[in-house]
Amino acid sequence: MLKPLGDRLVIEQVQTEEKTKSGIVLPDSAQEKPQEGKVVAVGNGRVSDNGERIALEVKEGDSVIFSKYAGTEVKYEGNDYLILRESDVLAVIG
Amino acid sequence: MLKPLGDRLVIEQVQTEEKTKSGIVLPDSAQEKPQEGKVVAVGNGRVSDNGERIALEVKEGDSVIFSKYAGTEVKYEGNDYLILRESDVLAVIG
Amino acid sequence: MLKPLGDRLVIEQVQTEEKTKSGIVLPDSAQEKPQEGKVVAVGNGRVSDNGERIALEVKEGDSVIFSKYAGTEVKYEGNDYLILRESDVLAVIG
Amino acid sequence: MLKPLGDRLVIEQVQTEEKTKSGIVLPDSAQEKPQEGKVVAVGNGRVSDNGERIALEVKEGDSVIFSKYAGTEVKYEGNDYLILRESDVLAVIG
Amino acid sequence: MLKPLGDRLVIEQVQTEEKTKSGIVLPDSAQEKPQEGKVVAVGNGRVSDNGERIALEVKEGDSVIFSKYAGTEVKYEGNDYLILRESDVLAVIG
Amino acid sequence: MLKPLGDRLVIEQVQTEEKTKSGIVLPDSAQEKPQEGKVVAVGNGRVSDNGERIALEVKEGDSVIFSKYAGTEVKYEGNDYLILRESDVLAVIG
Amino acid sequence: MLKPLGDRLVIEQVQTEEKTKSGIVLPDSAQEKPQEGKVVAVGNGRVSDNGERIALEVKEGDSVIFSKYAGTEVKYEGNDYLILRESDVLAVIG
Repeated sequence: MLKPLGDRLVIEQVQTEEKTKSGIVLPDSAQEKPQEGKVVAVGNGRVSDNGERIALEVKEGDSVIFSKYAGTEVKYEGNDYLILRESDVLAVIG
Repeated sequence: MLKPLGDRLVIEQVQTEEKTKSGIVLPDSAQEKPQEGKVVAVGNGRVSDNGERIALEVKEGDSVIFSKYAGTEVKYEGNDYLILRESDVLAVIG
Repeated sequence: MLKPLGDRLVIEQVQTEEKTKSGIVLPDSAQEKPQEGKVVAVGNGRVSDNGERIALEVKEGDSVIFSKYAGTEVKYEGNDYLILRESDVLAVIG
Repeated sequence: MLKPLGDRLVIEQVQTEEKTKSGIVLPDSAQEKPQEGKVVAVGNGRVSDNGERIALEVKEGDSVIFSKYAGTEVKYEGNDYLILRESDVLAVIG
Repeated sequence: MLKPLGDRLVIEQVQTEEKTKSGIVLPDSAQEKPQEGKVVAVGNGRVSDNGERIALEVKEGDSVIFSKYAGTEVKYEGNDYLILRESDVLAVIG
Repeated sequence: MLKPLGDRLVIEQVQTEEKTKSGIVLPDSAQEKPQEGKVVAVGNGRVSDNGERIALEVKEGDSVIFSKYAGTEVKYEGNDYLILRESDVLAVIG
Repeated sequence: MLKPLGDRLVIEQVQTEEKTKSGIVLPDSAQEKPQEGKVVAVGNGRVSDNGERIALEVKEGDSVIFSKYAGTEVKYEGNDYLILRESDVLAVIG
């Protein structure tokens, strides 16, 4: 299992070639194309300036929209994942 | 439904080809052209440095003016939305 | 009415072609030309790092000098306004 | 009267063509040429991150040295002033 | 022994020429290629703005994924190590 | 007298053409050439984010080493001075 | 003696032409070549945002690895030193 650090998430990406399950179609003309994915693991949150950890808003199992060029691709046990920061997540679908 | 994260908003854009309902006409000469839209969803607010969440000033249903090039376009269930941060909103019309 | 967000102001600009009422003449040689205007609406102030809102120093009705290239032009109900941040205001005339 | 905002000052500039009263002569070779002036108005100070206003060190009537290219020139009721931030003031002469 | 300072780690790199033990294969197409390694020493953590030291999430013996171009290579007593900051670690494998 | 503001110092520069009194010789190959000087006046210190003034470490009469290109040259009552920030001082000689 | 200010250290550099005592050999291929040295003096530490001084982790006599291009070279009483910030120190050898 991959346990992301701080305010990072592990995301299972949804292929953008086919129309997504929730019906999101990503416009070609958007300056910054968002993408859909499913959260498979979340970090413990970043530490604030006064030393407290701030829990993430996003939780495991959430479907999220995020900026296309955010994060780092990782292949783990044969699957493709994306590790990104919660601040790169635009919205939760639900 | 789209639930934006942190200090983000989901906006339904008003077409600028026709004169807007409230009578705003956007001048061509403005360096940074503002646009009008309606808030359809708001996030829970950003977390301050001492760990408290700061509620947004803008609320669902508000008509707002925002910077034209702010945010990310998303198509969801056939409709066009814009997800942007509250700091990109200039003013509420009301 | 336009209600600016955070530390923003709505300003009614004074034309610089004619000499302003208070007698300010803007020198051509200034690197950053200031301009005069009247405050018609103020925001609730920005939120400090410990979560408190900081009220603006400027109030409705003030005549202010601000940097020429600051802010965003908006036409609302036939009038021209400028929305800018209080930090772009140099001084109050009074 | 001009009332500067925040940590700004209104300065009456001393002409650098003639030797200043206090005897300061500005060297041509300095990378950043300082200039002398008299403080005619001070702001209420900037607001710290915990919401308190920090009073200025400089007070009305002080003679100060400041960076030449700092601030914004303003003509008000026939006189030339410079509005700059206290952080652009290097030292008080006295 | 190498004792890293602050929020730094000493990492023993896993060679990327062969398939790693945990089965991670690093895709060529990734913009920022992550790499796998083992943590051999951790710092005491950075000091927060209110003067407290924030302990690291990563501990000695952890297998971690980190950004390829992060950190500084060091040869010590015949072995190759990488010293990097915890913020360059994407996830712990376990 | 010159009273520097905030965390600034007034320094009487030591000529680098001749070997300095304390024996420091400045190498030509250094990327950033340090210089020696004597502190003739210190400011009250900068104000921290919670509104307290932080006294300077350096005091009047100290011999200090500082970065060559730091600060602003000022001629005052016939003497050359340099006004710089304490953060540009590398070390005290003593 | 040289007393560094704030979070600075005075370092006696170890020559990299010969193999160092502790056996560190610096690889040519490293993007950022680290270097070894001995700490001969430490500052009192930087002041945190709430006004407390944060003591350094490194102490006099420590052997440290630091980034090659960090700091400023100083010749003092015939010896070569390097003055750098603790944040440029990667690890203590011990």
